[in-house]
Amino acid sequence: MSRFFIEKYSSLVPYTPGEQPKDMKYIKLNTNESPFPPSEKAINAASEAINILNLYSDPESRMLTEKVAEYYGLDYENVLMTNGSDEILYFAFTAFCDKNNPAVFPDITYGFYPVYSEFLNIPFREIPLKEDFTIDINDYFNAKGTIFIANPNAPTGETLSVADIRKIIEANPDNVVVIDEAYIDFGGESCVPLVKEYDNLLVTQTFSKSRSLAGARLGMGMASKGLIQDLNTVKYSVNPYNVNRMTSAAGYGAMCDDEYTKKNCRYIEECREYTSAKLKELGFEMTNSKANFIFAKHNGADGKKIYLKLKEKGILIRHFDKERICQYNRITVGTKEQMDALINALTGILEELK
Amino acid sequence: MSRFFIEKYSSLVPYTPGEQPKDMKYIKLNTNESPFPPSEKAINAASEAINILNLYSDPESRMLTEKVAEYYGLDYENVLMTNGSDEILYFAFTAFCDKNNPAVFPDITYGFYPVYSEFLNIPFREIPLKEDFTIDINDYFNAKGTIFIANPNAPTGETLSVADIRKIIEANPDNVVVIDEAYIDFGGESCVPLVKEYDNLLVTQTFSKSRSLAGARLGMGMASKGLIQDLNTVKYSVNPYNVNRMTSAAGYGAMCDDEYTKKNCRYIEECREYTSAKLKELGFEMTNSKANFIFAKHNGADGKKIYLKLKEKGILIRHFDKERICQYNRITVGTKEQMDALINALTGILEELK
Repeated sequence: MSRFFIEKYSSLVPYTPGEQPKDMKYIKLNTNESPFPPSEKAINAASEAINILNLYSDPESRMLTEKVAEYYGLDYENVLMTNGSDEILYFAFTAFCDKNNPAVFPDITYGFYPVYSEFLNIPFREIPLKEDFTIDINDYFNAKGTIFIANPNAPTGETLSVADIRKIIEANPDNVVVIDEAYIDFGGESCVPLVKEYDNLLVTQTFSKSRSLAGARLGMGMASKGLIQDLNTVKYSVNPYNVNRMTSAAGYGAMCDDEYTKKNCRYIEECREYTSAKLKELGFEMTNSKANFIFAKHNGADGKKIYLKLKEKGILIRHFDKERICQYNRITVGTKEQMDALINALTGILEELK
Repeated sequence: MSRFFIEKYSSLVPYTPGEQPKDMKYIKLNTNESPFPPSEKAINAASEAINILNLYSDPESRMLTEKVAEYYGLDYENVLMTNGSDEILYFAFTAFCDKNNPAVFPDITYGFYPVYSEFLNIPFREIPLKEDFTIDINDYFNAKGTIFIANPNAPTGETLSVADIRKIIEANPDNVVVIDEAYIDFGGESCVPLVKEYDNLLVTQTFSKSRSLAGARLGMGMASKGLIQDLNTVKYSVNPYNVNRMTSAAGYGAMCDDEYTKKNCRYIEECREYTSAKLKELGFEMTNSKANFIFAKHNGADGKKIYLKLKEKGILIRHFDKERICQYNRITVGTKEQMDALINALTGILEELK
């Protein structure tokens, strides 16, 4: 820290992205990327955009925004595109939380929520998940704050039904409820249809997972026109040209190839069930994940040891040094070949650790 | 504004980007874009990146950061890449300004400085430019705040020498001095070499102007390792994957083709002098711009009328409804053909307005 950094940040602990070690070639199962390349339509659209990069992007990403609105049966004014879904989340914390509107979220969830809160000097309340890592929706009735729920949750993959989310929204009519649907396309039930019904719901999504565009950085928020207007006020006060031409075009291309997205998602779902069954045979316990990852602990081997041993063998998974979940690891569901390599490696490691 | 928007933003006036009307094909001289396409090397590098967009970008943009550091004779830890230079400026306001460290900048300068200040609830002091729109450096000695100076300044194009900037830095050893060099490559003298000498200097630059990558959104900050570390703490608390794969690659390609950048800059400089001479013949007065734009007012015709008449004729320039400069227009220097079209149109308009 320099002597110029303003005082309120002196104890700030920023977010730690998943590691990207360069020492060898790894099977990367640690950042929930898609094992599939982007859609040809996304590739072609982005390629065309490159030739006119001397011209500013459209700050509204109009074509893409229209396409998204059409796809989800929303109006143009219900949608805002951002530089990854981290940006729409940052905007939401900025726009809808302060001392009088604390942030409320589960104790085990996306690690960025407490970081945003600390950074923006927003008080926050972490509500413990139940013993089985599911959410008790009763804990969120009359929450007296802005609610952030990842659905499916990360890193557990556990989901809430739309009916349950509806209850939370209705129980908090004077607070914004943010549903972070980064992993919704792998078997969860999206609550985007509720956007038209409630003025206090913001749904965020990403193109990083199901649409194979993690490296393009594209996310979005869908909400009532009032909330989107507020988020736009933030955007135009922070970074109006937040989405570049290539990303906007790639996103448009991806939206035009829903068949490809859906096919890949079905593959991941099948592969998740296949892998889960194998892991169970090896003695792992798992949450009921509807995401493109598995959250697993072994009954006889330490979570961190498993993570480190796998890394030695060239397979990266994600381990969190956090009390309630330190025996677990989050494993991205990749191709069947990658999953077989994982199972083989784990079989060996469990032998060693016996 | 929705009823959920937090109160401190109720009177916020966000930044207004240059207009992008879609009703007809315009000659766009209103956002200081380059008339030249990106370097072939930038195009090729970005094209290659598209195929692996399913993988997250490197949050450090390591290859690009190394290349920039090497180019400017800095260390890796002196450089931070951002999603446009708006983002590095936002980070700087965030990191180095608060109630005890107000922002200090000229009354006529980049319109985003007061927006960041208002948004972040930072007190700010605007120091009037001299009558001729130049900066009196004495006004910035012992400024008691974090100083932001665009050099060349926008929308005037007026420059400070490195010797003068050095005096400002030395007169404010306990405050950060931010020099915004978005337009430095068109004849100004960069103060990047001072980065190694002073721990309180942050230089920001963009790839949008001289490097023809406005649509890719790429900017950067160069500063002492301490300041860059602070800015990284902000980045990793806001948006760790702020620069996408394609943009990072395009920036790397552009850095590898300095000859192309320099050739384009020389063209723009020559074209600026050519256009300035023609405008003078037509009765315009201009500041001494070293940027890729001209800041001009006419002795006999109203600034806003000129802007509106040009728009009718399919030429967009930028007019600011701001007291001291409302008789002026900012005109991007494009190709000689575009400048001839501008001169022709203005000749006709001045006849009409007589």
